[in-house]
Amino acid sequence: MPSSTKKTRVAIIGATGYTALELIRILLRHPHVEITVATTRQEDAPQLSEIHPSLRNRIDLACTLLNPQEIAQAADVAFTCLPHTASMEAIPKLLAENVKVIDLSADYRLVDPEVYEQWYGHVHTDPTRLGTIVYGLPELYADQIPGQDLVANPGCYTSTSILGLAPLLCGGHIDPVGICIDGKSGVSGAGRSPKMITLFPECNESVMAYSVGNHRHTPEIDQVLSDVSGKEVEVVFTPHLIPMDRGLQCSMYARASSDASEKEMLEVMRKFYENKPFIRVIEALPRTKDVAHTNFCDMTVRVSRGTVQVFSVLDNLIKGASGVAVQNFNLMCGYDETTGLLP
Amino acid sequence: MPSSTKKTRVAIIGATGYTALELIRILLRHPHVEITVATTRQEDAPQLSEIHPSLRNRIDLACTLLNPQEIAQAADVAFTCLPHTASMEAIPKLLAENVKVIDLSADYRLVDPEVYEQWYGHVHTDPTRLGTIVYGLPELYADQIPGQDLVANPGCYTSTSILGLAPLLCGGHIDPVGICIDGKSGVSGAGRSPKMITLFPECNESVMAYSVGNHRHTPEIDQVLSDVSGKEVEVVFTPHLIPMDRGLQCSMYARASSDASEKEMLEVMRKFYENKPFIRVIEALPRTKDVAHTNFCDMTVRVSRGTVQVFSVLDNLIKGASGVAVQNFNLMCGYDETTGLLP
Amino acid sequence: MPSSTKKTRVAIIGATGYTALELIRILLRHPHVEITVATTRQEDAPQLSEIHPSLRNRIDLACTLLNPQEIAQAADVAFTCLPHTASMEAIPKLLAENVKVIDLSADYRLVDPEVYEQWYGHVHTDPTRLGTIVYGLPELYADQIPGQDLVANPGCYTSTSILGLAPLLCGGHIDPVGICIDGKSGVSGAGRSPKMITLFPECNESVMAYSVGNHRHTPEIDQVLSDVSGKEVEVVFTPHLIPMDRGLQCSMYARASSDASEKEMLEVMRKFYENKPFIRVIEALPRTKDVAHTNFCDMTVRVSRGTVQVFSVLDNLIKGASGVAVQNFNLMCGYDETTGLLP
Amino acid sequence: MPSSTKKTRVAIIGATGYTALELIRILLRHPHVEITVATTRQEDAPQLSEIHPSLRNRIDLACTLLNPQEIAQAADVAFTCLPHTASMEAIPKLLAENVKVIDLSADYRLVDPEVYEQWYGHVHTDPTRLGTIVYGLPELYADQIPGQDLVANPGCYTSTSILGLAPLLCGGHIDPVGICIDGKSGVSGAGRSPKMITLFPECNESVMAYSVGNHRHTPEIDQVLSDVSGKEVEVVFTPHLIPMDRGLQCSMYARASSDASEKEMLEVMRKFYENKPFIRVIEALPRTKDVAHTNFCDMTVRVSRGTVQVFSVLDNLIKGASGVAVQNFNLMCGYDETTGLLP
Repeated sequence: MPSSTKKTRVAIIGATGYTALELIRILLRHPHVEITVATTRQEDAPQLSEIHPSLRNRIDLACTLLNPQEIAQAADVAFTCLPHTASMEAIPKLLAENVKVIDLSADYRLVDPEVYEQWYGHVHTDPTRLGTIVYGLPELYADQIPGQDLVANPGCYTSTSILGLAPLLCGGHIDPVGICIDGKSGVSGAGRSPKMITLFPECNESVMAYSVGNHRHTPEIDQVLSDVSGKEVEVVFTPHLIPMDRGLQCSMYARASSDASEKEMLEVMRKFYENKPFIRVIEALPRTKDVAHTNFCDMTVRVSRGTVQVFSVLDNLIKGASGVAVQNFNLMCGYDETTGLLP
Repeated sequence: MPSSTKKTRVAIIGATGYTALELIRILLRHPHVEITVATTRQEDAPQLSEIHPSLRNRIDLACTLLNPQEIAQAADVAFTCLPHTASMEAIPKLLAENVKVIDLSADYRLVDPEVYEQWYGHVHTDPTRLGTIVYGLPELYADQIPGQDLVANPGCYTSTSILGLAPLLCGGHIDPVGICIDGKSGVSGAGRSPKMITLFPECNESVMAYSVGNHRHTPEIDQVLSDVSGKEVEVVFTPHLIPMDRGLQCSMYARASSDASEKEMLEVMRKFYENKPFIRVIEALPRTKDVAHTNFCDMTVRVSRGTVQVFSVLDNLIKGASGVAVQNFNLMCGYDETTGLLP
Repeated sequence: MPSSTKKTRVAIIGATGYTALELIRILLRHPHVEITVATTRQEDAPQLSEIHPSLRNRIDLACTLLNPQEIAQAADVAFTCLPHTASMEAIPKLLAENVKVIDLSADYRLVDPEVYEQWYGHVHTDPTRLGTIVYGLPELYADQIPGQDLVANPGCYTSTSILGLAPLLCGGHIDPVGICIDGKSGVSGAGRSPKMITLFPECNESVMAYSVGNHRHTPEIDQVLSDVSGKEVEVVFTPHLIPMDRGLQCSMYARASSDASEKEMLEVMRKFYENKPFIRVIEALPRTKDVAHTNFCDMTVRVSRGTVQVFSVLDNLIKGASGVAVQNFNLMCGYDETTGLLP
Repeated sequence: MPSSTKKTRVAIIGATGYTALELIRILLRHPHVEITVATTRQEDAPQLSEIHPSLRNRIDLACTLLNPQEIAQAADVAFTCLPHTASMEAIPKLLAENVKVIDLSADYRLVDPEVYEQWYGHVHTDPTRLGTIVYGLPELYADQIPGQDLVANPGCYTSTSILGLAPLLCGGHIDPVGICIDGKSGVSGAGRSPKMITLFPECNESVMAYSVGNHRHTPEIDQVLSDVSGKEVEVVFTPHLIPMDRGLQCSMYARASSDASEKEMLEVMRKFYENKPFIRVIEALPRTKDVAHTNFCDMTVRVSRGTVQVFSVLDNLIKGASGVAVQNFNLMCGYDETTGLLP
């Protein structure tokens, strides 16, 4: 572990959104971190607390424009909270300047540039690096993350789904074909840019499915579940927008492929996540409220009429984005995985 | 059609809850109805507007205790908004007094008294009548409802699911086995009795599945879908509580059993509901907001990776309870099906 | 009253927002109205149901661009739901074509063009007409509305405040100086244009005051209260945004200027609104839920430590905008004031 | 400061409610605290994580019944989260056993037993101690808190009001007579016991004033503001329930009693709270969202038409209850005031 006296200097690239705010809040609690850079596209160098009023008196830092050289001088590690395509433009430059990167965008999550192009509608501009990048889901890839220069932080629906399904899929208890994932997310997952669909009077008192059949987390779920289970997995993923700020719940439906009882399946899940500090395998049906503002992912399993149902919940901004990013940061930098995240 | 000058006198049996309130609101708009009786278990004869302040200046009626003879003198038709078991105690007495009944409880929905006992934990006390009662889903059983003395009004999740699945199931486009129904309901569906689980700070900013594997709407869905399709249907039904007052959405997952395209399946749905005034088969993904405070059920279909997904929404208090009750009332009494419900 | 066989043809000018949607919903219930025109700035002539999906199957009407001559051929009366300044540009042309107008903007509410300029930052372009226009608060000006060609529909906070304060002010029971109005509004009052401040994750789980000291409803409240009471009234009006779709509540604080008891003041309010079908003076503290989706305004009074507190609530989209607009329409056209609005 | 190696052992008396949960969350972060006791009235010794599922894996502690001797053996300090009257029964016993107490109930806040009886409807059973107890609002009484055995933790509305008004009242800039306080609170402030009024479908999409003229925080505000200002203060306090989990906002209206400008008044507030780590005097209008889940109280001032308006916000469960309790604990025990509360 690095000396505790010298702090790691951290840059927040793209500091305007909800994910960045949550990241800053966590890092302010992290004993080994100093936030030295925050960037926006706003030219007038706003204070972080002007963009995020909740940070008043908490941090005194003026935002700058994204300049890789300047970032490299001021920071050791960068968290990139940029939209896709903007990330793959900035990251190679940051890496060239020896800045380590945790990328919260989707740009380095998929291994196949063609799959990227198909789902994102853009040619990947850094295809050779793609596929060499560790997928930053520490519960599955913790041993590969230490020492990396770049980690691809997973999507929020992705983490919720994969964490819930991996144990039973790897254990051979569910059929890899025809898994249906019904995801429900709070509105903060849709970002902070004004859009009619996320106006309060549009999404309050309402629920709807969206992006059915074409949500970009689909290939990510397929890829990682196939990788960890060694089976060809193709999920049907269906997200829903529900009227709450934060929280993400997945109810997942799969055909049973073993005779294991519900109790045995629960035990499989418990064993799979033994010693994983942020996974809580429980008997009760999990609710998002109990993981809100934490880095926990709660989950359970039910078997009913030949169908295995896995239920998992997390806070989309923390375990679904910024919390897991700090978990990755800790592993990359040699800190204890839970630093800044517990209690 | 009955003479428009003489109004049908209506009793609301169990007037305290959200369903009763919504029913009264609709009936106040109904040109052929006069509400003459409202009952509660409160002994002090409260005015309806004391129980439901929104009814102030709208109706001047003091509640009475449930007395079948008195009800028969004052009313032609009764809507029973009682808990299960209370309904099957009261209804035989009302029928004996020649009062027609629309029952909003679950007591007369299932045809088999053993299934009732298994799911509700009570011996059915009126088993011979059970199984002779028409299931009050007018889109499926409209021709059987006129002239009935008792109609069993369907459950809210039940209507949403059945209406969405019936066309494709009857048309042979989806496999009757392994259908998964992921339902999301607003909190008014849980009733007006104080419980910790429905306190605002418990269910706001949260989502959770509940009653997994044992929700009582399950056998009702099985029974009706089997009846209309002629196939043995056994669904996996999973309800969720989400932080909104009203609205109910079902995302339903079934294996395709035909080669029909998404467009063709949509056409099957459209044809199935041709001339049904309260069903809107649409191309867009439906949201509960667009049916709130109406008797509409909106639905659509998607096909993705061999899975057929049907999405349907309705207002749980109206099309899911009191609106369809008035539809049934209209059909029983010979009024136009839409009276009081449109626009 | 006009012949009930011939319907009044109505145009909705500016049909995109929440107010227009609510107006259309009410007018669809109005037995003497046919909606023949709806305008937007969108050039592709969208169907009303594309803009407002809840209107599917309810109305078959393609939107047009605003053209006064064409509107005059197709409609007898226009409801203008335009932003301020756009209204005062369109309305003189509509009036010149003999189209009657109910204006839901602020352009014709103030009598003094200089006050308009001061609060709205624009020179009024129709100053001679200003000041001749009846203020469309039927509870105060009902006798002046019949026969008018143009009525200025009041603001939502304005109606709530004025209706609550007028009885006691006119009766001499409260001091006209130093009245503080603390208003709380649901987010639909802020309109349907995407803005960061009205995004769900910004205003959910939050409350804040806004526009303190400069909200444009202030001079409107001053003007009308001064007019009806004959006293110089200058209020301190402070609006708040709270996390709900619809509903508006005002708590108003004034110094008592008479010895009247709370009970006597309540009686003053009751008498003032005798025979007013949409005002409910009650003993309990009113809540917005009980007036939601209705044209009612509920109110009560409390006296505490020398301060008179008036509490009033209404639905900002109905009694605060579109419902009162239809009340005005009814009075202008000679229909019963409550047509389409009750029950 | 006490040795950092030996932790202070803490008891949570009455661990079932929202306040206790929040307190436990904060104390789990406190480096010098070990929670050794939690009590409930449930006889079956439930684990804390059964009562509060969010605490799973966070704390392993079975609840016990309240037994002062046993508590004294296991704990140095007790936080009493009991209802009023239960607190004044338990606290003398705890003090007799040399357990220090921070009382989150109202039982020791008022100095005059007659005022207590008048507002709470109970004779105070520990009247001699009453009046010797420090009021635990550290921003005003920090120098009196160290070394105390019992501190009376303030009410949530009380803190919000007093913190906002104290600077201008003490500075002579507002009239002590006729101050109106319009408070808005999230529903968690109403507690976790099931009541119809706090059911989700009752308070969602609604706002209402409650307890007008008789809310029990009124005499507390009067007493403390009179004490700190040396003037006879009698406020008109009006609370409102709004549909959110947590957050409390007060808009306060007072007559100006000096010629100070808005800017000067802001400066008075800034100076008054110089070096107070949890008060943020700002220029913008504060919103509860920006203090949610923190121990901050944000405030500002506006002057309009001779009326001074002070706006203050805090999180009712933290700065309004459990956060300030930990502030008091820190001061009583000699820890830094911010320990466990920042960042």
